[in-house]
Amino acid sequence: MTWTRRHILSLEDFTIEEYNAVLQTAASFREVLSRRTKKVPALQGQVIANMFFEPSTRTRSSFELAAKRLSADILNFAPGTSSLTKGETILDTAKTYLAMGANIMTIRHQQAGVPQIIAQEMDRLDSGVSILNAGDGLHQHPSQALLDLFTLTSVLDRDNPRLELLSGKKIAIVGDILHSRVARSNIYSLTAAGADVHLCAPPTLLPKLFLDIVDGEASNKLFLHWELTPALEDADFVMTLRLQKERMSGNFIPSLREYHQRYGITRNRLKLCHPDVKVLHPGPVNRGVEITSDLMDDPELSLIPHQVTSGVAVRMALLYLIGSSN
Amino acid sequence: MTWTRRHILSLEDFTIEEYNAVLQTAASFREVLSRRTKKVPALQGQVIANMFFEPSTRTRSSFELAAKRLSADILNFAPGTSSLTKGETILDTAKTYLAMGANIMTIRHQQAGVPQIIAQEMDRLDSGVSILNAGDGLHQHPSQALLDLFTLTSVLDRDNPRLELLSGKKIAIVGDILHSRVARSNIYSLTAAGADVHLCAPPTLLPKLFLDIVDGEASNKLFLHWELTPALEDADFVMTLRLQKERMSGNFIPSLREYHQRYGITRNRLKLCHPDVKVLHPGPVNRGVEITSDLMDDPELSLIPHQVTSGVAVRMALLYLIGSSN
Amino acid sequence: MTWTRRHILSLEDFTIEEYNAVLQTAASFREVLSRRTKKVPALQGQVIANMFFEPSTRTRSSFELAAKRLSADILNFAPGTSSLTKGETILDTAKTYLAMGANIMTIRHQQAGVPQIIAQEMDRLDSGVSILNAGDGLHQHPSQALLDLFTLTSVLDRDNPRLELLSGKKIAIVGDILHSRVARSNIYSLTAAGADVHLCAPPTLLPKLFLDIVDGEASNKLFLHWELTPALEDADFVMTLRLQKERMSGNFIPSLREYHQRYGITRNRLKLCHPDVKVLHPGPVNRGVEITSDLMDDPELSLIPHQVTSGVAVRMALLYLIGSSN
Repeated sequence: MTWTRRHILSLEDFTIEEYNAVLQTAASFREVLSRRTKKVPALQGQVIANMFFEPSTRTRSSFELAAKRLSADILNFAPGTSSLTKGETILDTAKTYLAMGANIMTIRHQQAGVPQIIAQEMDRLDSGVSILNAGDGLHQHPSQALLDLFTLTSVLDRDNPRLELLSGKKIAIVGDILHSRVARSNIYSLTAAGADVHLCAPPTLLPKLFLDIVDGEASNKLFLHWELTPALEDADFVMTLRLQKERMSGNFIPSLREYHQRYGITRNRLKLCHPDVKVLHPGPVNRGVEITSDLMDDPELSLIPHQVTSGVAVRMALLYLIGSSN
Repeated sequence: MTWTRRHILSLEDFTIEEYNAVLQTAASFREVLSRRTKKVPALQGQVIANMFFEPSTRTRSSFELAAKRLSADILNFAPGTSSLTKGETILDTAKTYLAMGANIMTIRHQQAGVPQIIAQEMDRLDSGVSILNAGDGLHQHPSQALLDLFTLTSVLDRDNPRLELLSGKKIAIVGDILHSRVARSNIYSLTAAGADVHLCAPPTLLPKLFLDIVDGEASNKLFLHWELTPALEDADFVMTLRLQKERMSGNFIPSLREYHQRYGITRNRLKLCHPDVKVLHPGPVNRGVEITSDLMDDPELSLIPHQVTSGVAVRMALLYLIGSSN
Repeated sequence: MTWTRRHILSLEDFTIEEYNAVLQTAASFREVLSRRTKKVPALQGQVIANMFFEPSTRTRSSFELAAKRLSADILNFAPGTSSLTKGETILDTAKTYLAMGANIMTIRHQQAGVPQIIAQEMDRLDSGVSILNAGDGLHQHPSQALLDLFTLTSVLDRDNPRLELLSGKKIAIVGDILHSRVARSNIYSLTAAGADVHLCAPPTLLPKLFLDIVDGEASNKLFLHWELTPALEDADFVMTLRLQKERMSGNFIPSLREYHQRYGITRNRLKLCHPDVKVLHPGPVNRGVEITSDLMDDPELSLIPHQVTSGVAVRMALLYLIGSSN
């Protein structure tokens, strides 16, 4: 296929061809990353502005490393030492980077919709710049869901990861669904793949209206559970989500200990799942809350390090696909 | 001409030949920046230390991008996480970067004169290091004035920007002149070009002694206004300046609203100017204070994005000229 | 020799062959650094993660520049904007960088032992990653001691610096020994070289148990003094240490002024030493406390700028040696 999408803002309207293009491109970059010299000149001379208005270790470093391995030049925007403190609007900051020659902007912001607004402005100006949503509020985190997809499909066929491999698989997503942009993005990609997606959380963190996030055929693929057992039964994959400790003050859960007792993933509980089950977590992990420490460190059961490694390959793929079509 | 100036600290004693060398070199780099691969190996293996003791988005990023496109290695100095917190003197910090092999240091500091002091020390040590003043207190901001000059002369002759193009042009500089190092640097370059420079601000922000900033022939080119109308009449260019909100507490202006009413640049007020008038602003802009939002975004009237783009080309030119003559 | 050590955590068990390999490799990189193009492709495509949990200008910049000159890709970890603020453990942060493809991690941490713990975990995972201790608590700072060693031996034979040159030399280390990881690392390297090491500090900053830091033959090479005169008499080199001002509150010294009167190094006091004596300091310096300002700036007596320059060459050597043996 020829890649035509300029911005990657949400997975809501991603096509099967687009998912597969990302998976195949990421697989070829994974091969590059296994070489001693892990660099390709694909985006040499292009400028990628990393605009992270919200703190992040792993996503920022992952994008930065992906960009370096494509030989792009990188501008890191640090809001603390920036013109924002002088009252400049976010759009004006983005237009400044545009005028400096940025070709791609990766944007993380605590407010949902900021990457969309910047993308609209870039299009209105006919700038040719691509926007990559690196996480916006509670809305979307497409690169995370795509690296999860790459991780899952690579388990099933490492040489040829593709969307259809997940058809009919049961995938449980357990944890703070309500506040998770990772969950929202994954629901789109996994139901598009034809997987059965079972969401599980306490009722305060999983309102019924979540069933409306998808429609059409996909809505038959989405299930809600307030108890763990039915979610885990025969599951092929269990995706755990980070429980942000600041949620405690909102009375969403009674205590971390009680949360772990009812929803924490343990080696024992995994016996409910398919014998080949694997566990994922987007990180950073609260050890002993969402997942026990020994399970997280078990290379037979945990895909967590694979997710991080996949992140670099998938982000190289995304930057390459939108950067080459510019 | 052969470039011989080692440091760029102030425009006070810049020669016509130096201005034109910067403009012509910047024009050739603008051509490089329009290519797909925007890099040249001019400063490969040289080390540029960006020492920004004062926060900055655009100037720091602009210098960083210019250095990357010349293939230099960059050391970013962040005062927050630095030895300054351990009591080291600024001169000792600079000498540390010298000993590490820095060839050029770009320095921004809230105190006027810091780049000059470091330059003197570097010369005393016979180090061969060049200092580039990236803004010192209320004193000078030469790279900003040079990018303004490049922007203005490029409007008049894009292929061959040169100082004489501004001879006899009327240029209004409106806003907080008193606290503006940008205005101080521009007064030198624009009067050197033979332009008529009309400064306009409330009396609290424009003391009469500003007339003494230039002498000789240039002093006939400098005019002061406390009202906007005579400054704008038949102006070819209007340079607006940032009004720093922290000035409010000093009782320099009665209110932002009243300031805008008397000195804000609007589409209507521009009718006083020459029909081809263009507006500049060094950024970041307080929309609706110094300039109306619609005017700022009007590509027919606003040169603001051109200034940012020019910034990268001009800073490449400055780094190249002083880096090649080392 | 063939370099086999994977991690550089402490100098306690360094062999003479290892010291000499570092010195000779650093000497060859010093030659590279004197060229106009100061870069070699030795570590191209390798990823070096600089994980500085403690603020630092000179050590971080020195490692960063060394990595750039070896053409490695660099990931800078800034704890302020990181997942640490979200409660991630240090080991999980390190494993994230491992999964992203880091080949070498340079680690500075305020707690002694952190680099060791990360190195053990990297080995347990059979990761092949190398850990370079960039300063841990009061424990060790091996790259600083190695650059001191390179500086000292280069004074004695610039073309062929080697450990044996220091045999029988008298080296005084003066200052806050108790809180100095630099002193601890230097004691190992200098006694291994066969130098006589004379520690000098007020009793509160130099407990007697320091004599136990080395054993065997080396213990005959280590001397303690609470007065300056016997430490300086006929000394070939005087290493001064930083007096951290925060120690004042712990009542370790009566006042900075009194400390300087009794232990500060002055031009007059150096007359006690060997006529060719040279002075070192790891920086940043409290001018007028550990050492007088004029002495620090005297190129005949002070090796301080040479130490900083040596730092880049030695860190290139360390990264190269462990990076090539990966």
